[in-house]
Amino acid sequence: MPTIDFHAQHSPAGAQAQFTIGKFSARGGLGIGVAGIPQQDVFVGWSRGGVTRCLPFYADALSRQAEAFTQTQSAGGPKLQPYAENEIRRAYSIASDVWTTDVLKLEVFTPLVSVPDPDAASFDDLARAIRPSVSVRLTVDNSKSREAMRAFFALGNFPRYMSLRGADLVGVSSAGEYGFATRRRADIAVRPFCEWGLQTMLERPEPRECWLAGTAGICADIPPGRTAAIDIAVGFYHAGRATLGRDTVYMYTRHFGSLEDVLLADLADRERTLADCRSADARLRKARLNDEQRFLIAHAVHSYFGNTQLLAEGRRPVWVVNEGSFMMMNTFDLTVDHLFFEMKLNTWTVRNELDSFYERYSYHDTVHFPDSPGVQHPGGISFTHDMGVNNVFTPDGHSSYEAKDQPGCFSHMTHEELVNWVLCGADYWHGTGDGDWLTRRAGVFRECLASMQNRDHPDPARRDGVMSLDSSRCGREAEITTYDSLDASLGQARDNLYLAVKCWAAYLALETVLAEMGYADEAKSARRSAELAARTVAAAYDRDLGYIPAILNSDSRSAIIPAVEGLIFPHRLGLLDALRKKQPHKKLIDTLRLHLGNILKPGFCLFKDSSWKMSSTSINSWPSKVFLCQHIAREILGFDFGEEQLKHDRAHAAWWRIGSAPYGVIDQFFEGKTSGGGCIYPRGVTNVLWLDE
Amino acid sequence: MPTIDFHAQHSPAGAQAQFTIGKFSARGGLGIGVAGIPQQDVFVGWSRGGVTRCLPFYADALSRQAEAFTQTQSAGGPKLQPYAENEIRRAYSIASDVWTTDVLKLEVFTPLVSVPDPDAASFDDLARAIRPSVSVRLTVDNSKSREAMRAFFALGNFPRYMSLRGADLVGVSSAGEYGFATRRRADIAVRPFCEWGLQTMLERPEPRECWLAGTAGICADIPPGRTAAIDIAVGFYHAGRATLGRDTVYMYTRHFGSLEDVLLADLADRERTLADCRSADARLRKARLNDEQRFLIAHAVHSYFGNTQLLAEGRRPVWVVNEGSFMMMNTFDLTVDHLFFEMKLNTWTVRNELDSFYERYSYHDTVHFPDSPGVQHPGGISFTHDMGVNNVFTPDGHSSYEAKDQPGCFSHMTHEELVNWVLCGADYWHGTGDGDWLTRRAGVFRECLASMQNRDHPDPARRDGVMSLDSSRCGREAEITTYDSLDASLGQARDNLYLAVKCWAAYLALETVLAEMGYADEAKSARRSAELAARTVAAAYDRDLGYIPAILNSDSRSAIIPAVEGLIFPHRLGLLDALRKKQPHKKLIDTLRLHLGNILKPGFCLFKDSSWKMSSTSINSWPSKVFLCQHIAREILGFDFGEEQLKHDRAHAAWWRIGSAPYGVIDQFFEGKTSGGGCIYPRGVTNVLWLDE
Repeated sequence: MPTIDFHAQHSPAGAQAQFTIGKFSARGGLGIGVAGIPQQDVFVGWSRGGVTRCLPFYADALSRQAEAFTQTQSAGGPKLQPYAENEIRRAYSIASDVWTTDVLKLEVFTPLVSVPDPDAASFDDLARAIRPSVSVRLTVDNSKSREAMRAFFALGNFPRYMSLRGADLVGVSSAGEYGFATRRRADIAVRPFCEWGLQTMLERPEPRECWLAGTAGICADIPPGRTAAIDIAVGFYHAGRATLGRDTVYMYTRHFGSLEDVLLADLADRERTLADCRSADARLRKARLNDEQRFLIAHAVHSYFGNTQLLAEGRRPVWVVNEGSFMMMNTFDLTVDHLFFEMKLNTWTVRNELDSFYERYSYHDTVHFPDSPGVQHPGGISFTHDMGVNNVFTPDGHSSYEAKDQPGCFSHMTHEELVNWVLCGADYWHGTGDGDWLTRRAGVFRECLASMQNRDHPDPARRDGVMSLDSSRCGREAEITTYDSLDASLGQARDNLYLAVKCWAAYLALETVLAEMGYADEAKSARRSAELAARTVAAAYDRDLGYIPAILNSDSRSAIIPAVEGLIFPHRLGLLDALRKKQPHKKLIDTLRLHLGNILKPGFCLFKDSSWKMSSTSINSWPSKVFLCQHIAREILGFDFGEEQLKHDRAHAAWWRIGSAPYGVIDQFFEGKTSGGGCIYPRGVTNVLWLDE
Repeated sequence: MPTIDFHAQHSPAGAQAQFTIGKFSARGGLGIGVAGIPQQDVFVGWSRGGVTRCLPFYADALSRQAEAFTQTQSAGGPKLQPYAENEIRRAYSIASDVWTTDVLKLEVFTPLVSVPDPDAASFDDLARAIRPSVSVRLTVDNSKSREAMRAFFALGNFPRYMSLRGADLVGVSSAGEYGFATRRRADIAVRPFCEWGLQTMLERPEPRECWLAGTAGICADIPPGRTAAIDIAVGFYHAGRATLGRDTVYMYTRHFGSLEDVLLADLADRERTLADCRSADARLRKARLNDEQRFLIAHAVHSYFGNTQLLAEGRRPVWVVNEGSFMMMNTFDLTVDHLFFEMKLNTWTVRNELDSFYERYSYHDTVHFPDSPGVQHPGGISFTHDMGVNNVFTPDGHSSYEAKDQPGCFSHMTHEELVNWVLCGADYWHGTGDGDWLTRRAGVFRECLASMQNRDHPDPARRDGVMSLDSSRCGREAEITTYDSLDASLGQARDNLYLAVKCWAAYLALETVLAEMGYADEAKSARRSAELAARTVAAAYDRDLGYIPAILNSDSRSAIIPAVEGLIFPHRLGLLDALRKKQPHKKLIDTLRLHLGNILKPGFCLFKDSSWKMSSTSINSWPSKVFLCQHIAREILGFDFGEEQLKHDRAHAAWWRIGSAPYGVIDQFFEGKTSGGGCIYPRGVTNVLWLDE
């Protein structure tokens, strides 16, 4: 049985909020805009006749567990005895997380609903989709006892306590910003409390509110012979300004007046929420996937939503996906990977981001060859790496990440982000048929073509379809790719195989889009560039090595799996069947199949445990990109891994279940290990592509 | 020479804000509403020809200093070489803190101006008094050099960077909430920057803004042969809701539209600010005090203002003084000690707090004898310990601190706070002559008299002027005093000598106030109670011991200095000269003089280093209370400590200069030691009473 001892985020859409539980003996809890995991002890359990048992969601739960067994119950009062792993069953799926013990069941629900386009949706539909709440149900079985049982749901390290007491509500909040509540009920005494610790609360017949203290929750006294299911709404509410640089508020503040409003709405909508969750879970269960794959998809999706923000800038919706604990906003080289997920659920968000990138985060540069940085050639349009960080939008045309004269990491990704705009734009149009948008943005696609070609070579006659010039924005350093923390095999942009294949895909996308809009000459020019790229890349295949080296026109001997990434875009645009029959594209596709088959070997581009190693010369491997390339291998290149498939999936699931268990999803593993940087990462959702196989 | 190596807060009035520097090799910096010391490295210094020197206001400055000498300047770039203590002169006074080295001078100014009554003041006067800024001047002398010098003023751990660029301003802000700026100038290039570290900035010819990074500041390039004085405004701006429970905003948001507004106003008002500071410093310099006393007053005042908040609840001003890092709001047993300071500067704040306590934080209880808690007797009005915590106002009638059934610390202070309302109210009326207020609050004083007498004894015939019954709010436990963390000698309220003398003072105050308002019978009744108290306390003098034991009617043998505290109030009300001539008061005053003289002995109520030990049975001693009792000893009881005075003062100054050097002012020392709890404490300002001697 795989371990159940790992953190998971439970997050509504668009609120940058999380309720995190799951890692034993570790903190989690509630937070809005937290760069990482909240640091609250979570106490869910019951007390009866001097025995108190909890789910193990608090710091030192396991070492304290030992204490509880070895020490007599002396001055410290009733000890908390956490459930051990072998006493708990956890059922974790895409829309639910259910923890079951002998007499306690904790269910956490996050319905996977689409966020409708705010410009088109009804008030009620949008309100429901972005209601900033997580639905919890705590069931305790006191049916076989003759003593009363006190059940509790509480958080430690709970700042700025306030109680919530409405006509109907019983609950607690931290400064009105987050909190939880249940309905007042006639059959069971449910009360809020704030105490110095959980034990102090349990010692008192009457729970009390001590505002100075920091352990807050609700407790319910269950009579003997009764089983009680307590619905608890967990909610979030950030009033007022949400971001700086652009003056926005959370869209949900237009639909809900306060935290109490949110909690009441959650409790009132409980049946529909549960039905939505059951339906989402069933869809995943019925998909033709193994259990490891199901876990990976569920976990990726759980991590995604805590990164999302639906903001309103005046009347205009602004969709932001944050880059996990790095908190960069709409990192464009993540957007292109989130594309596959958003196009399933929230297509309008892709348009929204592309429009923001064009209107505010595009720029124009000049370009130069690496050996003559003093000679600038015409460049063109491109887009910034991101739109800001920590809820501060950077000034127009600037990212938080990119710097001049910066070697390696934190240099510019000019060419990569240019290609990403083209690929996202074409995919959005193709997936939605939104011709109005395409017409509105025709000029941008045309600018992008010119800009890409200028970065190939200033002399049209000497172009080969691949990037050869760096942006002037880099100063005396060179452009990088999204693989910023890897070695040159993936990090360097110029002559990079990964980027070259994406350029090929972008030229093909441009051809399609420009032809659709009637720009026949430019479509033809794009096609020519695509053919050049295909030829250049295929020609770089080294028969002795058995693969295409990572850096073209160099003595690089690195082999990289992401060589195949670009294939996904013509596939999604419906171009691939035709390309397979037509040179030079057929040759490129065949060569990439050969390349991948030859490098996917133990010790080369497979780690010992069968997990995928993106580059033969780096131990740094990224789940999101591996998932994408797995999909491409199977769906586009026809690989069948047979029995090995489960081994791969199991190894990748172990990255998250074990490697990043205390952090939620992480997208960067060094031989399966991580130090926790970049946790709650969103990019893992590339694996929803598996649902299409 | 006393050490200069200690933290000091520089704070405007009413903004709960601080700019903290001074402790070597430790963090400080900027914060609003921080419960303790901000944790930012502060870099103030210059770089020229490969040499970079800083004031030592950042973590590990001193160990890094060693590094700078022993290591070659390799990959890490230019090393920061902090000034050592023997290279720096610090001049620290009530309104300025000046750091001088060979070529650098840092001046920090906080003018000690009164906050006028917002209901009466002009818009401009109030704006100026509560402008949330601290005025800094950085002077660097490059006159003797042929190289350019780059001066800098920067903070590390600076979240949510934004640059401030107005027509006139060059500066940086953290999310618009705090920041600093100078004026753009023609003669020197002054630029904002945000970098990964100070060294990274110094390596670049052109400082850059990297939004992702966390070291932000301004730098100025000083040409060879020039000396430059750079005025820097450090500002704070908390927009929107300031507190919960009561919906308030900072008053200054009515006067200033943004952080930029604040900074511009500070820079424009520079000459008047400096004149105010010079005048405040001169007043302290001219006072008949020794240097240790001057330091103690200056340090207490520096710590006070960071605790203050001038809020607006609709049209109504709300004054809050927070309890240092404990963040309790308007703790009433501190208010009564802040009284002496506020009555010098901001008398209206006393009225404001008393009105809040009456209107929202008063309650009525019943009372009981300790040996028959089941039999409740009439009690009366009293007031809560505080109004909330962490900027959350507690519900009306409840403090954040007090709890039922709580032994010791966190029990109720019912009788003490009742007495405090009476004493503050009488002092406010006497000090201001505000008859309107007295008329409006006549009923409260009358209620207070009845309530005090009910806590003495339900049978008027059996009263002795001293508290004998505990509030029903305590449940099965007993009332405590402000000395909550001491042993019973000061902690227990019932029969407590300290509280008994304060009750005597309160009855005298009530007599005066009620007579003034024409309630002759009640005035007489108050006088009778005062006489009873005087007799009871004086009679408790133990000739064998040579003092009055701390707990009357018990076998306590503790001796306490705060026995004399209550004397301050009749002294301030102008009653004492008459009382000295009249029994039983004369007897009480004489007995207290005898008491104090006999216990102020080394090893008893003096620590080895001559610092004052409040209780003979506890090593816990509080500067604020010691200062108050020193004043009473000299001014009221006629003590002359002669040569010893300086020894006392030096020992108390060492508590703050050395004992709490990393924390700012602390008000609780255990044999001169502290673990840092309750830092930035406000109560030390009792020592402004020394200015009246």
